[in-house]
Amino acid sequence: MKKWGRIEVDGRQMEVSLQGADLVAPGGKRFALAKSRLLPPVVPGNFYAAGLNFRAHIEWANQRGASHKVPEQADIGYRSNNALIGSGADIVIPKDSKGPVEYEGELVAVIGKKTRHIAEDKALDCVAGYTLGNDVSERSWQRSDRTLWRAKSSDTFKPMGPWIVDGIDPMAQVIEVRVNGKTASRYETKGMIFSVAHYIARMSRYVTLHPGDVIWMGCDGATLPALRPGDLVEVVNDAIGVLANRVVREPA
Amino acid sequence: MKKWGRIEVDGRQMEVSLQGADLVAPGGKRFALAKSRLLPPVVPGNFYAAGLNFRAHIEWANQRGASHKVPEQADIGYRSNNALIGSGADIVIPKDSKGPVEYEGELVAVIGKKTRHIAEDKALDCVAGYTLGNDVSERSWQRSDRTLWRAKSSDTFKPMGPWIVDGIDPMAQVIEVRVNGKTASRYETKGMIFSVAHYIARMSRYVTLHPGDVIWMGCDGATLPALRPGDLVEVVNDAIGVLANRVVREPA
Repeated sequence: MKKWGRIEVDGRQMEVSLQGADLVAPGGKRFALAKSRLLPPVVPGNFYAAGLNFRAHIEWANQRGASHKVPEQADIGYRSNNALIGSGADIVIPKDSKGPVEYEGELVAVIGKKTRHIAEDKALDCVAGYTLGNDVSERSWQRSDRTLWRAKSSDTFKPMGPWIVDGIDPMAQVIEVRVNGKTASRYETKGMIFSVAHYIARMSRYVTLHPGDVIWMGCDGATLPALRPGDLVEVVNDAIGVLANRVVREPA
Repeated sequence: MKKWGRIEVDGRQMEVSLQGADLVAPGGKRFALAKSRLLPPVVPGNFYAAGLNFRAHIEWANQRGASHKVPEQADIGYRSNNALIGSGADIVIPKDSKGPVEYEGELVAVIGKKTRHIAEDKALDCVAGYTLGNDVSERSWQRSDRTLWRAKSSDTFKPMGPWIVDGIDPMAQVIEVRVNGKTASRYETKGMIFSVAHYIARMSRYVTLHPGDVIWMGCDGATLPALRPGDLVEVVNDAIGVLANRVVREPA
């Protein structure tokens, strides 16, 4: 299994592979993981997000006043790069947010090959690997606004990482979210309404997938407790690792 | 007034400035405009689109069965880079589109400076220049799908160009759309519900604007006739120029 990502050293960004407790740059230079500033492992040309893709999450949201239908076809949505941060960076709640601000721990597929019109049984061939995402959501803006822009893509609302791994089955993963060290959410990716392969195959009928594009696959179940300043939120998967971010509030 | 964009020469992409009938690369090399393949003048890190931002367009869409409210605040939406093409490239209608496929001729603001928390009266300072966009829309998918992805961001559905110009007042422009040489739509940008400066100021309270980000400002009025294979659709502005694209259908 390969693991790779990006770090910033003295203001320079570089791609690195994870080898033991070291991050290794293409020239062979090594950096201690513990001392490195991780960036989002990729900056996508196209930032896709399924949003609603698990039944228990839809039912839970509807119990709280949402009116989502269970999707009948795999339509993809969008998030925006401005919101990306790496593991270890702070999630900043905007000063005028009334909240609640909630996590959504998700599996993320990272495209490795330019792809158009691919069949579902071949679709995973174009995936370079998988990482984790936290689809941080400001629920009052999600309800009030005409679009999801500041609810889902305010700066720092899209932690992604810690790195990309290859060789895993995207439909056989457990995704856990811990808040301050306690398990808050835990679900299996096999519960997806539309699989990663189905999404990719359908998307590729209309859009060219490019290397570096990411597809966030949605989350299952409830997304509580709401995040408060000082909280540490971690999205965890055995194969990929831990995407850890502290929550702060923007100064008034 | 400066004009600049991007071209592809022998598989290499480069930025060029328009000087008379020539495109001039940074090293001074000149290319005849008439023989050059124009690319989208910028590949944005974040691709914003206002969508609904003119009253007559909303009223017209509602007469045809839509149920848009007039926006009460400047919420921004998204399009995706996969869909971008330059002036001169073909708009390809997907083979299973039932249509109608319609144009939306728009003014596009291109960000030039990293910006956060900017006041409305200073907001245009972060704009490098303006270009034109055609927000091609497949109306049956716009109605049927949970998101706007293939309705608005199918490959080739976002012609942008022909180049970027600076020094114009974004609120004092006339945008015209011609189909096969005949004026199909003509409106003034001063009719925007939320101005370019207002959008930028509000967006910058939550998102960092980065150089190269684009904001498509929406269109006014009807967007007929529907586009058919063989049509030439042109978005025209006196200061910026002509964004011209031929329509074809994807082979079955």
